[in-house]
Amino acid sequence: MEQKVPGKPSKQVEEVGNWWIKIVAASTKHESLDAARDFGENWASLTAEPGVVDYIETNAGGVPAMWAVPKGCIEDRVILCLHGGGFFSGSMYTHRKLFAHFAKAIGCRALILHYRRSPEHVHPAQVNDTLAAYRWLLDQGIQSNHIAFTGDSAGGGLSITTLLLARDKGLPMPAATMPISAWFDMEATGMSMESNNGKDLLLNREWVKSLADMFLGENGNPRDPYANPLYADLKSLPPVYMHVGGDEVLLDDSLRLAERARKAGVDVSIDIFPGMQHTFQMAAGRAPESDDSISRFVEWVKPKLGLA
Amino acid sequence: MEQKVPGKPSKQVEEVGNWWIKIVAASTKHESLDAARDFGENWASLTAEPGVVDYIETNAGGVPAMWAVPKGCIEDRVILCLHGGGFFSGSMYTHRKLFAHFAKAIGCRALILHYRRSPEHVHPAQVNDTLAAYRWLLDQGIQSNHIAFTGDSAGGGLSITTLLLARDKGLPMPAATMPISAWFDMEATGMSMESNNGKDLLLNREWVKSLADMFLGENGNPRDPYANPLYADLKSLPPVYMHVGGDEVLLDDSLRLAERARKAGVDVSIDIFPGMQHTFQMAAGRAPESDDSISRFVEWVKPKLGLA
Repeated sequence: MEQKVPGKPSKQVEEVGNWWIKIVAASTKHESLDAARDFGENWASLTAEPGVVDYIETNAGGVPAMWAVPKGCIEDRVILCLHGGGFFSGSMYTHRKLFAHFAKAIGCRALILHYRRSPEHVHPAQVNDTLAAYRWLLDQGIQSNHIAFTGDSAGGGLSITTLLLARDKGLPMPAATMPISAWFDMEATGMSMESNNGKDLLLNREWVKSLADMFLGENGNPRDPYANPLYADLKSLPPVYMHVGGDEVLLDDSLRLAERARKAGVDVSIDIFPGMQHTFQMAAGRAPESDDSISRFVEWVKPKLGLA
Repeated sequence: MEQKVPGKPSKQVEEVGNWWIKIVAASTKHESLDAARDFGENWASLTAEPGVVDYIETNAGGVPAMWAVPKGCIEDRVILCLHGGGFFSGSMYTHRKLFAHFAKAIGCRALILHYRRSPEHVHPAQVNDTLAAYRWLLDQGIQSNHIAFTGDSAGGGLSITTLLLARDKGLPMPAATMPISAWFDMEATGMSMESNNGKDLLLNREWVKSLADMFLGENGNPRDPYANPLYADLKSLPPVYMHVGGDEVLLDDSLRLAERARKAGVDVSIDIFPGMQHTFQMAAGRAPESDDSISRFVEWVKPKLGLA
């Protein structure tokens, strides 16, 4: 586990916290779920345009998705990207630029998935969609060891649970997975729910629990291992590298998953970024902290994808 | 000239005015031109994501540009799109979604140009870039009568001046042009500079003049017809259809151009949208006024491009 020396957060990365403050302030005022989602689409405005990247919408095994294709990239290497948004919001559009930054820095393609969202679609719709997209990538002739997963928040959860489902269905594992500010615990029991309460400018226990209720639906089980990997057998997972902000209520989600994965024999690393908020990587291309996080992921994953 | 019956502006279109208020408030605080431009990139956040459109960067005769390609569109029909931003800001990224809405509604491709900006590049760099892109489209085998121009603000100016340059160089005219909230007058002499002063939440005479200075450079002539088409012979231009907000200081730019074009025998129409701000179309996909404007353009231009 690497912990960066704390410093004063950059002005640019503070925009992530300002965005969360705006989201919280607006959260009680939306007239409808659609209005809340539309407001949330401007999450994307935190991220600088990467440039020299093409964006092609596609159908990934029945799931809408978008290819981000940096000019001159190695097309047979792919990161499968799972956006955050509490399972009810966010989209391939909110995260287009973030994941394009990843792809451009790696020199590969990104497949940004637009999985079905709650409450219209409850678990396991999301993990099934992600598995379908992974299977589709393999069917396209992309080798499993040329694919890495990544995802933030709810998508960080999917970047683990999909591996469990793939493993249990006998599919080959991808090369690696990189959960960002991941949300795993559907019961919101982490110690950081208390210790970072108030420091986290977006989330608190109550909100996490209500998102879990929406995700699981009426008859859902918050300990279903395909929804909550803290209750899963994690053996045979590929290498896992997690980044999480030091001020997040979800900090312990990553710490506990890392501990369990290590016990199961998984190659797992975690970097905690002191003073950072939930999904601070969204300021990619603007904030040095975001770019530092992406650089570390890139350096770590490139050799795993067979890239120099 | 059609004038819409005034009504209360929608909450969504008021976001355009709120954006201009933010731009004005921030304008004195930027540490550098790059910082101002980066701030301005969030102009894009006004526009809803059109969806089911691909975006491919290209080189259009030496000028960076982006294709917006709605799935299933008629690829040999093209709108050449010239973004606004006072010639010093804005980009193919700020206007990606706006022009993709146009292209999607027409059922054609949009080529969104990323022309050189002032003050690093002064007139005639911009009109030369646009001409190069038009020539490149013709070289790609796109018929001139299958191309229409559009542009907003500074780009609206280019959507006329480029035609003059093309005509004078003996190139065939495109099918039509659709200037939006166009800026033509490099001397800022329109009556609406006074009558709409204060109503216009972005521009005033002083600011327009300083933008003109930056665009023309030290030795520039504000009556150069390729910079200021109010001083041009407008004969032989293709059909022109302009939209302008009733509260704009630039209102008279469109009115005067329309009058001069009509006298020169050009087929010209103009719609004034009462109570609307500069480039209110940026709320496309969210505000009914923006979508109304785009619908009118689309209905007008489709037959001119040979589309049903």
